[in-house]
Amino acid sequence: MPENNTIKKLNRFSVSADLQIFLENNPDKKVIVIQGLGFVGAVMSLVCANSITEEYAVIGVDLPTDNSIKKINALNSGEFPLVAEDPKIDEFFKNSISKGNLYATTDPTAFSMADVIIVDVNLDVGKKADEDYSLKDYDVDLTNFKEAISTIGKFCNTKALVLVETTVPPGTCEKLIKPILENALGKRGLPTCDLKIGHSYERVMPGPKYIDSIRNYPRVFSGIDDVSATATEDFLKTIIDTSKCELTRLSSTTASEMAKVLENSYRASNIAFAVEWSRFAEEAGVDLWSIVNAIRVRKTHANLMFPNIGVGGYCLTKDPLLASWARKNFFGSTTDLEISVSSVSINDQMPVFAYQRLKFVFGQLDKLKVAFLGVSYRGDVGDTRFSPVETLYRLIKSDTSFIKVHDPYVSRWEELGVDVFADLDDVLTSDTDIIIISTAHSSYSSEELISKILSLPRCKIFDAVGLFNKKQILSLKDKHEISLIGSGDFT
Amino acid sequence: MPENNTIKKLNRFSVSADLQIFLENNPDKKVIVIQGLGFVGAVMSLVCANSITEEYAVIGVDLPTDNSIKKINALNSGEFPLVAEDPKIDEFFKNSISKGNLYATTDPTAFSMADVIIVDVNLDVGKKADEDYSLKDYDVDLTNFKEAISTIGKFCNTKALVLVETTVPPGTCEKLIKPILENALGKRGLPTCDLKIGHSYERVMPGPKYIDSIRNYPRVFSGIDDVSATATEDFLKTIIDTSKCELTRLSSTTASEMAKVLENSYRASNIAFAVEWSRFAEEAGVDLWSIVNAIRVRKTHANLMFPNIGVGGYCLTKDPLLASWARKNFFGSTTDLEISVSSVSINDQMPVFAYQRLKFVFGQLDKLKVAFLGVSYRGDVGDTRFSPVETLYRLIKSDTSFIKVHDPYVSRWEELGVDVFADLDDVLTSDTDIIIISTAHSSYSSEELISKILSLPRCKIFDAVGLFNKKQILSLKDKHEISLIGSGDFT
Repeated sequence: MPENNTIKKLNRFSVSADLQIFLENNPDKKVIVIQGLGFVGAVMSLVCANSITEEYAVIGVDLPTDNSIKKINALNSGEFPLVAEDPKIDEFFKNSISKGNLYATTDPTAFSMADVIIVDVNLDVGKKADEDYSLKDYDVDLTNFKEAISTIGKFCNTKALVLVETTVPPGTCEKLIKPILENALGKRGLPTCDLKIGHSYERVMPGPKYIDSIRNYPRVFSGIDDVSATATEDFLKTIIDTSKCELTRLSSTTASEMAKVLENSYRASNIAFAVEWSRFAEEAGVDLWSIVNAIRVRKTHANLMFPNIGVGGYCLTKDPLLASWARKNFFGSTTDLEISVSSVSINDQMPVFAYQRLKFVFGQLDKLKVAFLGVSYRGDVGDTRFSPVETLYRLIKSDTSFIKVHDPYVSRWEELGVDVFADLDDVLTSDTDIIIISTAHSSYSSEELISKILSLPRCKIFDAVGLFNKKQILSLKDKHEISLIGSGDFT
Repeated sequence: MPENNTIKKLNRFSVSADLQIFLENNPDKKVIVIQGLGFVGAVMSLVCANSITEEYAVIGVDLPTDNSIKKINALNSGEFPLVAEDPKIDEFFKNSISKGNLYATTDPTAFSMADVIIVDVNLDVGKKADEDYSLKDYDVDLTNFKEAISTIGKFCNTKALVLVETTVPPGTCEKLIKPILENALGKRGLPTCDLKIGHSYERVMPGPKYIDSIRNYPRVFSGIDDVSATATEDFLKTIIDTSKCELTRLSSTTASEMAKVLENSYRASNIAFAVEWSRFAEEAGVDLWSIVNAIRVRKTHANLMFPNIGVGGYCLTKDPLLASWARKNFFGSTTDLEISVSSVSINDQMPVFAYQRLKFVFGQLDKLKVAFLGVSYRGDVGDTRFSPVETLYRLIKSDTSFIKVHDPYVSRWEELGVDVFADLDDVLTSDTDIIIISTAHSSYSSEELISKILSLPRCKIFDAVGLFNKKQILSLKDKHEISLIGSGDFT
């Protein structure tokens, strides 16, 4: 029997009635509390509530903001607060409802119940852009993150494992989290010797394999000491299917924190590399797509990226900066991670290059009727965070106000306050001048869309994501002008 | 019967007697002339002389410099002018001697005999470095290259295929080679309509698979028009084993020229990326090797590079600059290929970082006795061109003159005018203070070397290339101080 007997726990803090009932309904289960119910935390809560070798009671905790309260209420009333293509999300959520082992709350006393606390809160980077959208300056404001850790320290029991999943500047567990938690326990007159802090980063990929990208995907982990690392490993083995994927233990939390930001920086710099060669290919009148295909046959070059409108989402747009910030602020270097930081800057400018290319190929856009297909930063996902389409939209908006936007996964583009159409017929009309394929949703590559476009009397097409294959491009080219990003072949 | 009947050909120009005899001994064979007998041209001549579906007479032509004449004489007297680990080189060379179908000369009239002329001459980039070895400026001087093409134009017959293998700035075939050849033929009063110009780059990897890296390795090709591209393909099929590897046709010579420099720029930028993270890892006291291993399990990250002393050789140190130069000089861009150019600069600085690290870990080097193991830029190869060891050697030389150098593949380090020992006992002596593993020759990872080092009374070891595995490092660490590049674990 786990020692975290429910009644004992409840005595420690004055816990809300709902939480008491939830815990009483899940007696003798170990308790996992997940801090932060965003794109990672929410799905992580499902993975934990559907763990593999042990039954957990899972509590999601978030701050009492309007948005979080909405999510919490949704979750507690049987509606998962996140739309995604993965059918397992529905399956896992239904399963947790029937087991009654998943609950969400804003009540921080929940941390006092936890055997394992998983930190999934945001840690943002403040970016300042120049007029040309290049990166002028950046800063990491740790205030909210420290506050979140302090809250854990105020309530957690001394034997809990605090497992950090948030992407943090390398060094954070040792230099920030450990002192904050020790200090908080000290203030409560509690010993700090049993405190366990682990770090293990997710490799979540929103989309049709959302759950699998957590559950069946190799993981790196570490702890601030051996006991913490082993506790982390033991826990991960209960939720990750280690028959399908490997766990790799690194020798310090700084190492695994570094691994996470390095992974994303590598990706960001590979993308930035492709950006500059896309522009060169366009200038030289050659097709970078066929060049990349010809090169990728070499295993040593398989990670070479294709042209694209830009990079978006929450990670690649900031993680290189977290790393470079840590290098200077935690480890006293006077040097930025030059390539990694440049990559962010170049990637932030990609939509500007796409905009310039569009005008170079098709001329001025003044008062033209423009249709965007896709606003998400990534295909087959409804996620508009830092979408490169946003920058392109804003730029085109300065030329014309006749813009309509379609996306099968987004109904309201919150960042811009724009309603998004779900029906292509509302967006592709006989007076459409320019169609911009701005997200590579696979539904867009259907023959249906192509015949719809071919039925239009006149329009120009800018495939900014390489959605169409060569055959499709040629069939469209029969009737309309078409330009493909990173290619000088069709101009 | 090929139309290049030997007698007909001989009438066109006054050809040297040796060449006449060679051609008379190879009647009715198509003639390949290879311009440039360097690291690619010399081995390419073997591949052509041992072609797959057709028998060729192969003539290597080089300029009458001391060095080239030495090579030409060696080749004609039965000694291949290039030392490499690949046993196939010896086999192919012996085979060509017994067939008598390979000959070398400085006589440019050889071009008049050619059905196929393969351009394998050098095209160098002039680099100016700042005091810290970063790249200050660069320029491409095309004088010699244009001269080489002009020479072909003076002698070639109008139906020859000129196949460019030299790595050139994208655009060179169309903007430079074609006009030069057309102009030269025009001056000779000859038609230019039959002129065929192809481009296909090798992916030569000096070392134990030297021949296979030409013969059994996928290739990209193109031509200035369809006839040229088809002629190029037809020819390549006779020398490349297309049952084992694919030929990819790109739509223009600019595209395949770009593919070549992009490939190498990608590699250079991946290395530069690893450089800056190596330094960060050293500063943060973590081991980048285990981090890279943990990340490389992801296919999307398999090209992530390990720490190293630097990048050397003829290609990666200049090709990104050829590309960026072309972007500005052939296609009117005002922008460099920023990441690619920065990568060259960062990579050029790598040995400086290694030097700084060495002193940070082991203290001042004044008057210490230093042993370098390896001078080649790459393991298991005797090639010191632009070796990063050169920079490290020069830096250490400013601290101490007691330096000994070992390399199993190099007897004289021409760039530095330094004799290189072949016997480890001459280099590793009881008064050796610091051993620097500077090239990852596989013979160095033997237990023999490790016991030799362990038998030394006192020394410090700097593994600047990650030669030793963890077990070997730990066994060395039992007796000596050891530091591994890109790792803060052993300091």
